[in-house]
Amino acid sequence: MSEFELIARIIPTLPENDSLVKGAGDDCAVVDLGRKDELLLLKTDAVVEDVHFTSQTPAPGVGHKALARALSDIAAMAGQPIACLVTLGLPAEFDPDFVLKFYEGLNSLARKYNVAVAGGETTRTTGKIFVSVAVLGTIPRDRILSRSAAKVGDAIFVTGELGGSISGKHLEFDPRIREAQWLAENFPLHAVMDLSDGLAGDLRHILNASQVGAELLSSAIPISRAAKLKAKNESSAKPPLLAALTDGEDFELLFTLPPKDAVRVLDGWKAAFPKLKLTCVGKISAEGGLRIRDKEGIRELGLRGYTHFQKS
Amino acid sequence: MSEFELIARIIPTLPENDSLVKGAGDDCAVVDLGRKDELLLLKTDAVVEDVHFTSQTPAPGVGHKALARALSDIAAMAGQPIACLVTLGLPAEFDPDFVLKFYEGLNSLARKYNVAVAGGETTRTTGKIFVSVAVLGTIPRDRILSRSAAKVGDAIFVTGELGGSISGKHLEFDPRIREAQWLAENFPLHAVMDLSDGLAGDLRHILNASQVGAELLSSAIPISRAAKLKAKNESSAKPPLLAALTDGEDFELLFTLPPKDAVRVLDGWKAAFPKLKLTCVGKISAEGGLRIRDKEGIRELGLRGYTHFQKS
Repeated sequence: MSEFELIARIIPTLPENDSLVKGAGDDCAVVDLGRKDELLLLKTDAVVEDVHFTSQTPAPGVGHKALARALSDIAAMAGQPIACLVTLGLPAEFDPDFVLKFYEGLNSLARKYNVAVAGGETTRTTGKIFVSVAVLGTIPRDRILSRSAAKVGDAIFVTGELGGSISGKHLEFDPRIREAQWLAENFPLHAVMDLSDGLAGDLRHILNASQVGAELLSSAIPISRAAKLKAKNESSAKPPLLAALTDGEDFELLFTLPPKDAVRVLDGWKAAFPKLKLTCVGKISAEGGLRIRDKEGIRELGLRGYTHFQKS
Repeated sequence: MSEFELIARIIPTLPENDSLVKGAGDDCAVVDLGRKDELLLLKTDAVVEDVHFTSQTPAPGVGHKALARALSDIAAMAGQPIACLVTLGLPAEFDPDFVLKFYEGLNSLARKYNVAVAGGETTRTTGKIFVSVAVLGTIPRDRILSRSAAKVGDAIFVTGELGGSISGKHLEFDPRIREAQWLAENFPLHAVMDLSDGLAGDLRHILNASQVGAELLSSAIPISRAAKLKAKNESSAKPPLLAALTDGEDFELLFTLPPKDAVRVLDGWKAAFPKLKLTCVGKISAEGGLRIRDKEGIRELGLRGYTHFQKS
């Protein structure tokens, strides 16, 4: 049984109740406690030594990343984070200095977004260090965003630049909390999510959930300097466009909105967030699947269709 | 630096905000989102392979325990659990059957208390299996319970029977959600907590937080059958009374209330929960420290003062 099959078997068995608006399978759980204007968001995210960081990773970066990942999911709902709880699994011979510096990184990010660190449990492990962060947030009652709301004709946008996060961004990225709230307050957002598995992979989640297809414009994809540098300096690195399409942990926003709002959102964005790129990278199509257009024409980006972008 | 010193250094650095009513150091975090009648509770708890369970532990027991521990903290606040999120760290070569049976145990307990399992993330680990469960709950706005509210003269109560949890109870215990709500609705509870480190250790937390002392009555301590059996069958086991005082993971309620309510709570309890013991085990005193009285007199239960109860 694959992990995908396993999760597909488990999700329908999970107990629900009258308070649950959105459960497993979305970026955040949405809970309704009968409050007039507001719904609650809940999200947990874990980072594990040797998977999401190494014993060489600076401890403040681990703390930053552990909270930032969960906040990025709150951003994908254009939510307001309120409080978080931190569980830290430590081996018996842990370094107290790691823990102090871990909290420096985590606390600093929490302060930036006015998130209370409402509890910090440490627990013993005989295995690797792990961190699990749970975040409580809120959204206006009438503004539940989802992956499944993309419409044919929508323009597709990404914030920032993509690819090469592993060179450093994954330890210091800014979750797009304020940007997402601004977008949701000013524009009729359709599908929204945060980029964790790469543009091609995450866009596919939106397409599947919305039962539509998409066409990306190769020349429009914003490629990060880190991805370009990596391609230049490391012979085994992905070509930059492939990195921008498939590297994980960008933690930028991916969203779609009606084409009539495309120019307006780009103009408004420049005034609101002059230091951060917003790019229209393609459009939603009635024809299923994910395609990319470049000067040589248009081709399918199949699940294993990235060989075109490999170095010869 | 000891773990205690480390935590003492970290707690004052944790960011707070206007929503935070009670943060790190209590059983649950308490969050105020401006709702008229209600406050929110947040709690996470982790269980780790080789620490809280072994590779031989039946998977449904692991799932039950992972959720029940967090629910026991909600019970310590007499709260109503609403929803939980589950993070499951699994090695690459994990057994899908373990995961399915883990969720059987967890889901079954969630259904019993009408808790929605609002999300279930799995993540890779190169270490041991770990589970982190985050729970959202609610309490009435005017009913924040705490460890620090014990008053001189209070009668001290425990639910159930103590000791020997490791023989099986730790995998199947019932968090005292309903019992705690009933107590809080009908009686002026003072200090309340759930027993995770043993009566002597946890009562000491209440005494320190409330700046009082206590006297226990040896003959009143409700000793579990498991602790008695263990003492009888295993030469290296603790004597039963010592087990009841110091074994961890009882997950019963420990609380204090004014002496004038002691008889009334015992009578009401018998009618409300005829199958579960409630026992008055002692009283809160102005004199600091923890003492125990038996037929030979009264003696101090120092931090290392349990040698009296060892087998000769």
